[in-house]
Amino acid sequence: MNNKKKLIRTKEENVEQLYKQLLHGNRAALAKAITLVESNAERHFTQSQHILQNVIDRTGNSIRIGISGVPGAGKSTFIEAFGLYLCSIGKKVAVLAVDPSSSKSGGSILGDKTRMEELAKHPQAFIRPSPSGGTLGGVNRKTRESILLCEAAGYDVILVETVGVGQSEGIVRDMVDFFLLLVLTGAGDELQGMKKGIMELIDLILVNKADGENLRNANRTAREYNQILHFLQPATPGWQTKAKTCSAINGTGIMEAWEVITQFAQNTKDSDQFEKRRSEQKQQWFFASLKDELERRFFQHSTIKTQLPIVKKKLDQENMPVSTAVKELLDQYDRREE
Amino acid sequence: MNNKKKLIRTKEENVEQLYKQLLHGNRAALAKAITLVESNAERHFTQSQHILQNVIDRTGNSIRIGISGVPGAGKSTFIEAFGLYLCSIGKKVAVLAVDPSSSKSGGSILGDKTRMEELAKHPQAFIRPSPSGGTLGGVNRKTRESILLCEAAGYDVILVETVGVGQSEGIVRDMVDFFLLLVLTGAGDELQGMKKGIMELIDLILVNKADGENLRNANRTAREYNQILHFLQPATPGWQTKAKTCSAINGTGIMEAWEVITQFAQNTKDSDQFEKRRSEQKQQWFFASLKDELERRFFQHSTIKTQLPIVKKKLDQENMPVSTAVKELLDQYDRREE
Repeated sequence: MNNKKKLIRTKEENVEQLYKQLLHGNRAALAKAITLVESNAERHFTQSQHILQNVIDRTGNSIRIGISGVPGAGKSTFIEAFGLYLCSIGKKVAVLAVDPSSSKSGGSILGDKTRMEELAKHPQAFIRPSPSGGTLGGVNRKTRESILLCEAAGYDVILVETVGVGQSEGIVRDMVDFFLLLVLTGAGDELQGMKKGIMELIDLILVNKADGENLRNANRTAREYNQILHFLQPATPGWQTKAKTCSAINGTGIMEAWEVITQFAQNTKDSDQFEKRRSEQKQQWFFASLKDELERRFFQHSTIKTQLPIVKKKLDQENMPVSTAVKELLDQYDRREE
Repeated sequence: MNNKKKLIRTKEENVEQLYKQLLHGNRAALAKAITLVESNAERHFTQSQHILQNVIDRTGNSIRIGISGVPGAGKSTFIEAFGLYLCSIGKKVAVLAVDPSSSKSGGSILGDKTRMEELAKHPQAFIRPSPSGGTLGGVNRKTRESILLCEAAGYDVILVETVGVGQSEGIVRDMVDFFLLLVLTGAGDELQGMKKGIMELIDLILVNKADGENLRNANRTAREYNQILHFLQPATPGWQTKAKTCSAINGTGIMEAWEVITQFAQNTKDSDQFEKRRSEQKQQWFFASLKDELERRFFQHSTIKTQLPIVKKKLDQENMPVSTAVKELLDQYDRREE
């Protein structure tokens, strides 16, 4: 056996080992597998797909919960309190993030693990910062596949956090079963600033910081939201979205939020809405990925890399019609094998 | 010469004749050429591209003006008054339409030519209803190519009308030099209902129906819009968008609107912003078309038509990971010539 073959063999063995460890709930193996999923290298893609194929039958057995809220709404404090509560009742909790800003800046909303110090230390919890780099579409794929890996590792509650800035809510809605929005007091003001359509994605609104002097205001805000929700299309057919209050700091409303979610899971499983949504999400994700990958292969192909600048020049300098330029480039691409 | 060859020859001769007549400003030839552009038949595509290639050097010499406004803002009455004024000062005016609803329903905002009866009869005017059928992307291509054909036929002002419902404004902005929004009195109310971001696309706001008892209200509304515009990013760098009043019915403000547009053309041509935008529009249109056509060819290919249902089944029933399904389908597509 030559050296190269040996190296490949070793890697294959590593990947085999990795998914077996992952299926046993090994956190380090899970973290490594997610790193492979997040990598942009072709070789890592092959490895991560191999892992996914081998664990896919063990996925799907969690409740996937999206959590959004404007900066300052107290998302990390809430996730820490909520996650610790879930651990206390025997659940295994994974926290992932979709961060529209990280795809541009390389920054990350969950980069700082100290934000959820207690939860991060808990043996039943797994926290993963937002994958950095790449487009929002790329972050999207990485998060979806990370959810599957967490499920295979036995995590039964997956929390997907995102910043409530309007760009990523739709993406997160399409990968979760239940979507929770954290807000602060002053429904009217916040609604003004909220991007239209966000309210229609939500299954539960939690008015956070319902404690101390703020309690009365928080209750009034929840009532105001409930009045508005009354006029809106529900995010999930057959489920009436409600607004409730909570205090992540003194722990009130946390258990009640989980009760709402288990009730939701029960209802939607009974009505088949749960499976229907998951199946639709998978189909829609398949078509979006297919289009992304079709484009990626096209623009990365050597024929297109050579011909694109030539066609663009004809477009600019020889005043070629756009449709003709498109046809010329695609005909060359279609003939590339001949 | 056999019959088939003769037929093809005749068609080629017809197409040659068509574009020559079009270049001489023949309205029937222009209408026929646009029909070829609007057709979804492959054969007509080839013919329309042949025409476009032969007339492209005679395009670009117009000012392309987008006109939007909510239903009831008086778009047809305004276009009739504005178009007739332009004809009276020696311009040739073409009116095209982008109608987001027509791509679904087959209906058309300009289907009823009687809406602009006087203008339709004028020898210097050409009115074309919105192309029906197809996606908004398809309507988009058809309208862009129709603009070029109108220019080649000597029309020097192209009006592109659209319904102000938020969906099509961005598309129209990307194909015109100047974008005009018609509004009614009551800036506050209208702004509430206006989709966010629309204001940032506009180069001139005209408060219509500034006549009779409505005159005072219209003037106040224009002032309110001007106050708001003061805080917004201008649609065109170096150009301060303003709100003015007009009355399409008694003809006031029509000449002034044209003065604003000629001033705009002068300024943006002096600063090279005019050419810069047109060049960017062409590039962006090229890339959008390229992606559309890439997808169209993919999904219409026999390999994909056969394999897609098989892969979808594996996705559903055999629980294949999405990325694997995508890779399998694209690998088959890439190998299709082998």
